[in-house]
Amino acid sequence: MDTPNVFEFLERIVNLIKEENVLNPQEEDVIEYVDPEDLKNKIDFSLTKRCANLDELEATCRKIIKYSVKTNSAKFHNQLYGGTDLFGLGATWLSESLNTNQHTFEVAPIFSLIELEIVEKVKSLIGYKEGDGLFSPGGSISNMYGMILARYKMFPQSKTKGLTGLPVLVAFTSEEARAHWLGIGTDNLIKIKTDSLGRMIPEDLEKQISRSKETGCVPLFVNATAGTTVLGAVDPIEKIADICNKYKLWLHVDACYGGTLLLSKNYKERLGALYRSDSFAWNPHKMLGAPMQCSIFITRHNNILHECNSASAMYLFQQDKFYDVSYDTGDKSIQCGRKVDSFKLWIMWKVRGLTGFQSLVDNAMNCAHYFKSAIENLEGFRLVQNQFEITAVCFWYIPKNLRGKKEDANWWKQINNVAPAIKEKMVKNGKLMVGYSPLHHKGLCNFFRMITTCHPILTHSDMDYVITQIQLFGEAL
Amino acid sequence: MDTPNVFEFLERIVNLIKEENVLNPQEEDVIEYVDPEDLKNKIDFSLTKRCANLDELEATCRKIIKYSVKTNSAKFHNQLYGGTDLFGLGATWLSESLNTNQHTFEVAPIFSLIELEIVEKVKSLIGYKEGDGLFSPGGSISNMYGMILARYKMFPQSKTKGLTGLPVLVAFTSEEARAHWLGIGTDNLIKIKTDSLGRMIPEDLEKQISRSKETGCVPLFVNATAGTTVLGAVDPIEKIADICNKYKLWLHVDACYGGTLLLSKNYKERLGALYRSDSFAWNPHKMLGAPMQCSIFITRHNNILHECNSASAMYLFQQDKFYDVSYDTGDKSIQCGRKVDSFKLWIMWKVRGLTGFQSLVDNAMNCAHYFKSAIENLEGFRLVQNQFEITAVCFWYIPKNLRGKKEDANWWKQINNVAPAIKEKMVKNGKLMVGYSPLHHKGLCNFFRMITTCHPILTHSDMDYVITQIQLFGEAL
Repeated sequence: MDTPNVFEFLERIVNLIKEENVLNPQEEDVIEYVDPEDLKNKIDFSLTKRCANLDELEATCRKIIKYSVKTNSAKFHNQLYGGTDLFGLGATWLSESLNTNQHTFEVAPIFSLIELEIVEKVKSLIGYKEGDGLFSPGGSISNMYGMILARYKMFPQSKTKGLTGLPVLVAFTSEEARAHWLGIGTDNLIKIKTDSLGRMIPEDLEKQISRSKETGCVPLFVNATAGTTVLGAVDPIEKIADICNKYKLWLHVDACYGGTLLLSKNYKERLGALYRSDSFAWNPHKMLGAPMQCSIFITRHNNILHECNSASAMYLFQQDKFYDVSYDTGDKSIQCGRKVDSFKLWIMWKVRGLTGFQSLVDNAMNCAHYFKSAIENLEGFRLVQNQFEITAVCFWYIPKNLRGKKEDANWWKQINNVAPAIKEKMVKNGKLMVGYSPLHHKGLCNFFRMITTCHPILTHSDMDYVITQIQLFGEAL
Repeated sequence: MDTPNVFEFLERIVNLIKEENVLNPQEEDVIEYVDPEDLKNKIDFSLTKRCANLDELEATCRKIIKYSVKTNSAKFHNQLYGGTDLFGLGATWLSESLNTNQHTFEVAPIFSLIELEIVEKVKSLIGYKEGDGLFSPGGSISNMYGMILARYKMFPQSKTKGLTGLPVLVAFTSEEARAHWLGIGTDNLIKIKTDSLGRMIPEDLEKQISRSKETGCVPLFVNATAGTTVLGAVDPIEKIADICNKYKLWLHVDACYGGTLLLSKNYKERLGALYRSDSFAWNPHKMLGAPMQCSIFITRHNNILHECNSASAMYLFQQDKFYDVSYDTGDKSIQCGRKVDSFKLWIMWKVRGLTGFQSLVDNAMNCAHYFKSAIENLEGFRLVQNQFEITAVCFWYIPKNLRGKKEDANWWKQINNVAPAIKEKMVKNGKLMVGYSPLHHKGLCNFFRMITTCHPILTHSDMDYVITQIQLFGEAL
């Protein structure tokens, strides 16, 4: 029944990963782009009655590598994540092999203790004296944990009674946030104004809080961001915390992107007074390069995670076990089963230590600074903002025919088309991937967002390469 | 900076997995149990400034394997999952190496098409003519997708306005379900009575629906279960669908455990009229042995996933892309980033085909049937129910000193202690892991729940082993 040989398949996969330089694809193109409809002809995606043999399977996997984006490439700057830390990757190969589920100490003795250790470590980095935490499947869900705890703290009855009968609860943020699942409609997610660097303006926050109280709503939750998705901005936590304190709101810090700066003495101060928040989310799978998914949620309040989320499923969290069931952490979670995402971060930390992490972070920051300096006065480049906090450098490319012209609405309209056009060229050419995004600037206007991450370890020459490629494609428009 | 050598670490991990028989630990004990406090002395969990070298790291990983539960063992029957399908495992090694995020076609061309293919395939297995779907990080979240869509369909304004102002929404289930995050309090999650086999009683469902209407609540959602967690019961979907139709409620089927029967012609009818549901959740990481996490959510309604969940983040889902953005599936999801969980199932399907899957399912079912027959008339064993639907066989063990005695309250009280006592012995001994759970039967009374899964491929002799071990530990009480 068990043909083809499964162990041989694993060996072939490992060889394939080596042969095709998946983990170090620096000589390869970052993408071999094919349109969706054409891609369907390159690989047989169909699941039919016919079973593939090992050779066919290997050939298919080789093509999958060929047509997949090389996130481990130094030419990939498209997202807030990049390459993986290979120590973390090794950890996932092992934990996937053990197929462990985090729900109880009984089935996950080692990983339960590892998660606890990381939670303690991150608490101390943030500066929380008490509290609790857990790993979740990504930043959106980590941020939802914060909002749910806020609601539970203000209205404990919401767990049993739901939201009906409660006043309209309002949350405040400068970023996109996913609240509608939780019964807080998008209308009640108030967008706070930001300054020219993309940081939440505390005065506007206070104004909006007052306004929502005047209309009979109940301000509940502020989502401050340490590393916004597009501009990499860090909201002023200290001032926001003062306001939250005054109005008794829960302060959650979404540091999914920026949290990695905690690992460097040279940059952690950029994140501000994190210790003043009620909860905190960080994705080591972003800038730090832990393999996807690796997202940690921490709150400075004891017990609340368990009180708010426990379902006390009797088949899992029996209280008549023979060991100390406080090590069964699964009932703090909204999930029944959870992957052991803490393990990859723990292995990375064990082998690199804070010192090693700091070198990686400092190098990513250094490359971002170098990139910014290099384009600052370079013809054809214009910075969207003259300062950045994390590793996002945003800029417009201005093609020759638009330089020195009057910058009227029509000019900006043309600039708006430049980034998508260059992006199309670079992707189809395969030599570079950098993301773009619009900003309200004389209307919505697309610009590039260049991101540096910890992996692969980038160099100044990698930065020069990005500049040269953008120029090349920009001039060929 | 990058010492020790990362590639060498990966090689060592692969060797370790081989040397320690992680993937086929049939000669090993299933667990080497150590109390939490003692375990802290076996492994240095601390994250200090000191960095580990490769030898230390390897030694640590070896101990991690030693003290981890061997889920790939034929002695592991503790949960609804068991060992991994090694083809699926190979797929995860590759996809973790590629570090791909599912959010857009641009960064996940291959995996976007693979997810679409699986969604289509599962739709056709269920019998949905239309619809949509996606992979989510586990059953709880897949089930939440169902409830959120139900709410959005009945009250589209809930996305923007939230729940306030809406009537009290009520959901009905025979199982535990996680609804409080969504603003439906646990009080409004009405537990429907079940029959002696653990199946929802449709008459009680209808009664509860009427009752909640009488009290001014709005019935919204029925969660039917195909494979309950403890008894493996399958709710009568056809009759429940009739009721949902009559009262215009959304019918979601939680087939996280039982959905795997879809893959066998011989057993799929046990799941009933799935095609009549509005949505459906299935975890191939349970019985089928896809590496954790692998959970799929499907709805028969077109477009609603996108309409309900889209946040239209401009930095990710730009509409001015050069390709057909309908292939960007990320905006259907509550997550921003998603792992490419479809890939492991796709590889398994490619190589085994439906025929191979069917053999695996039939073998797991066959072993469960064998196990049940073997203990049915065996002294000291008593079945909790004389019929089972999926692969859960529930039974009490009755030690010699309790056999033939009057079965009064005191007798049942003693029986209640048997399973935890045997469990402690078997875990500390390391020879077997079978879960136990209480049931309301003369009060709450613990019994064993024996589970068979597709991996490792079990034999009748594995079943005999379980029986012998239970007898051994039971008599040593």
